[in-house]
Amino acid sequence: MKVLVIGANGQIGKMVVDKLKESEHEPIALLREEAQVEAFENNGVRAVLGDLEQDFSHAFEGIETVVFTAGSGAHTGADKTILIDQEGAMESIDLAEKHGVRHFIMVSGMGVENPRAVEGNMRPYLHAKFRADRHLEQSSVPYTILRPGRLTNGSGKGSVNLYEYKGDVQYGEVPREDVASVLVAIIDSKPENKIHYLIEGDIPVAELL
Amino acid sequence: MKVLVIGANGQIGKMVVDKLKESEHEPIALLREEAQVEAFENNGVRAVLGDLEQDFSHAFEGIETVVFTAGSGAHTGADKTILIDQEGAMESIDLAEKHGVRHFIMVSGMGVENPRAVEGNMRPYLHAKFRADRHLEQSSVPYTILRPGRLTNGSGKGSVNLYEYKGDVQYGEVPREDVASVLVAIIDSKPENKIHYLIEGDIPVAELL
Repeated sequence: MKVLVIGANGQIGKMVVDKLKESEHEPIALLREEAQVEAFENNGVRAVLGDLEQDFSHAFEGIETVVFTAGSGAHTGADKTILIDQEGAMESIDLAEKHGVRHFIMVSGMGVENPRAVEGNMRPYLHAKFRADRHLEQSSVPYTILRPGRLTNGSGKGSVNLYEYKGDVQYGEVPREDVASVLVAIIDSKPENKIHYLIEGDIPVAELL
Repeated sequence: MKVLVIGANGQIGKMVVDKLKESEHEPIALLREEAQVEAFENNGVRAVLGDLEQDFSHAFEGIETVVFTAGSGAHTGADKTILIDQEGAMESIDLAEKHGVRHFIMVSGMGVENPRAVEGNMRPYLHAKFRADRHLEQSSVPYTILRPGRLTNGSGKGSVNLYEYKGDVQYGEVPREDVASVLVAIIDSKPENKIHYLIEGDIPVAELL
């Protein structure tokens, strides 16, 4: 399948692209800068130049699956939280709908289900991510929403704990590399319009879905 | 009717409360600070203490009409744009729905219908306001959305140009006092689930709706 990776230059995005390169799927990296496009192409990956704040509809031609793992990052202001995390995601969902995408995979996060429980800097971010998730749920695009716990940089274990959201959240952390592995497993599976929570655990990723 | 004015201490909010005081309706002012509550009560207006960033559901007891004219203001950051303009509005709509409110009147703004046409500081605000408007349209609460042009401080003319949105926007400005008069006229009218644009013009407010 042709898989558009939005946020391909991010930490998780890069790992997803690398894993897809070794799979039967074809990753297409959406990137904001010419230099990034060159770097990905030199690495043998198809890349498309596009900015989530502008028109990036051209990136969706022929795309079957979308992985949205873009984020404005911790060092930008709340204006980018609106422009990227919320509106970039919502526009991606709208474009996926228009282009008949068959599976939209959203990288969300724990806590998004209840922003009002949180005070401080994280709250606007959680609101924005929640609105994007809700927009996906209300769209006609088949989807999977993944809400990992606190992301860590250690190497992946290859095993995790993936559970469906039923009103209770079991907090925890999870290495980014395991998040990337789970995303590839989700790409391989059929969309079931579900929200999955992800923390570290003992179930091999290959046995998850 | 009991009319909850959210943003009662703002420029337009204050004028709406004053006009309602002289009408057959009962304004209830939602205010964030104790001192504001005292000031409104000393002026003979019922007031309720509540913060849009916290739980303010108590304000909706027995309310029939809501006017949302709160705004985070031009001098706060985009975090408040999310917390107040977007989420405060959306939570108000959800609470109105739960409490069986019969008419939700949203003060929106011109340009909200197409934030991507705008660059710069205004764009996150327009996105946030658009999402709030859309949330209202998708709710089960009968509504009116009012999108005034650029707000001015001169005294009202008592006449305006109010037109329905049909894909084209005719830009212009309008005094805040005329916006307040139109809001009171909308309170007096039946909700038709419409979006109205408002600029200065020659039609007397009394003949509008």
